[in-house]
Amino acid sequence: MTLTILGCNGALPAYGRFPTCQILDVGAEMFLIDCGEGAQIKMQQYKVRSNRVNHVFISHLHGDHFFGLIGWLNSQALLGREKELHIYANEKLKAIIAIQLEWQLPYQIIYHDLVPNESQILLDTDKYEVISFPVMHSVPTHGFRFTVKRNKRMMISDKVRECEVPQYFYKKLTLGFDYEKANGEIIKNEILTTKGKPNLVYAYCADTLYTETIVPYLQNCNLIYHEATYCNDQLDKATARMHSTAEQAANIAKLSNANQLVIGHYSSKYKDISGHLAEANAVFEHVVLAEEGLSIEVK
Amino acid sequence: MTLTILGCNGALPAYGRFPTCQILDVGAEMFLIDCGEGAQIKMQQYKVRSNRVNHVFISHLHGDHFFGLIGWLNSQALLGREKELHIYANEKLKAIIAIQLEWQLPYQIIYHDLVPNESQILLDTDKYEVISFPVMHSVPTHGFRFTVKRNKRMMISDKVRECEVPQYFYKKLTLGFDYEKANGEIIKNEILTTKGKPNLVYAYCADTLYTETIVPYLQNCNLIYHEATYCNDQLDKATARMHSTAEQAANIAKLSNANQLVIGHYSSKYKDISGHLAEANAVFEHVVLAEEGLSIEVK
Repeated sequence: MTLTILGCNGALPAYGRFPTCQILDVGAEMFLIDCGEGAQIKMQQYKVRSNRVNHVFISHLHGDHFFGLIGWLNSQALLGREKELHIYANEKLKAIIAIQLEWQLPYQIIYHDLVPNESQILLDTDKYEVISFPVMHSVPTHGFRFTVKRNKRMMISDKVRECEVPQYFYKKLTLGFDYEKANGEIIKNEILTTKGKPNLVYAYCADTLYTETIVPYLQNCNLIYHEATYCNDQLDKATARMHSTAEQAANIAKLSNANQLVIGHYSSKYKDISGHLAEANAVFEHVVLAEEGLSIEVK
Repeated sequence: MTLTILGCNGALPAYGRFPTCQILDVGAEMFLIDCGEGAQIKMQQYKVRSNRVNHVFISHLHGDHFFGLIGWLNSQALLGREKELHIYANEKLKAIIAIQLEWQLPYQIIYHDLVPNESQILLDTDKYEVISFPVMHSVPTHGFRFTVKRNKRMMISDKVRECEVPQYFYKKLTLGFDYEKANGEIIKNEILTTKGKPNLVYAYCADTLYTETIVPYLQNCNLIYHEATYCNDQLDKATARMHSTAEQAANIAKLSNANQLVIGHYSSKYKDISGHLAEANAVFEHVVLAEEGLSIEVK
């Protein structure tokens, strides 16, 4: 699982920093997380094969988080996309997209509405789980938690062959079931499998006032992104505008027992963002500053 | 009058080339001509003081010509703009903007609808004239002609003082009127003024099939921008998609007796655009290739 930052700035692009956009590569495909203006240009620059994106997650409908979506959707069509695309967003997004398209796209968009103030399971497959959770901002806004499932038990092939377990039962083996032979003999799962690996979990906490109500959704993440629009010198402004400071972001990572924290969504007030790092590091050790083109392996 | 190219590419951004956007600096203010995605980012990069823009001209509602407008409008608000802004565009644009704004802008937008297939006088002041004219594309599309008026007669201050022409009559002098003294004596305008300078004219021909119907609007321009999506090797494609080739753009400049031609809106098919230049140059001598950041003094 690899996170790539395509845009790390707050509401106003500044100093070459683009509005919020991230790509999470989960192996078989990519998830697009928010899509600020210029996202498709950044994808080209960093050679992101964005035709591998089948699921788009939009945290909220402030422009710096979605103004780049229409351009990318349109370009996907021009590039001949036929695969359907799932978009998870506030219900208002559908009309915003529809009104801007002069033509019928050659692929289908399937919209999934995020319910304000609720947590939802958005995706749950053999390979991944994605949930939304409410954060606190001036419009309905959600964070997302992405889990790559790796904790299934792994078959010991020699043993599976020796005990003549039929192929149709393999999936049950990975889920921990014992195998019962035709003669009634029970073969314990531990004989046939070994423990899987721990899941990989990334959580994205979009624009939000500092709130510990999100901590239960963030327990033991490998990586958390939390917005850090300001430093503590602007705590009043952060609170008034329903944003967070770097110290607050670090507090959330600490309370959540995360492995690593990445911060971003910097105010255009800050040309130099080294203060954000110092402030967060005083609370939590493993902090990375988001910047365009940065890739972080989630481990 | 200075034209700055902020985006020169066609429908798909490619090779670092952005979608169409231009800034025309006419001295006292700036005109924004089309506004593809990333326009505000390019304005920052090239230090364009875009708060000096009071008039925006959108040729048509294909995304590569307007997807950057909403971001710029929103940022203007965040930067505290209070001055009203005039937008000249297809009537559908108003609803597209309105649906995307979560808040009341602190400035007023005044929309002026471009009537399909008609030429309109959009602005006519002491200093400028702007007209629209229809071009031929798959949706209603307009070109624009911008004139900076400089052809008023210029007063010879010593003579004006000597003949005791009162201040209220100065404007009439610049328009060529003779002055009649209180005693009935007529002082010929030629005694009091000298000839003004020629007007400066820039014409923007957005996405269009080759059509000589536009030539009457383009007579004797100092500078013409004409799209040149393809070279002649793709003439069939150009025609089918209602675009032009570099040679066709040059033909229009020649027929219009222009001083200079700038071409752009390159297809993402072309990484190297030197072929466009060679092809246009074979027909018309004074050709410039549009590229991001290029400024051309219109003279």
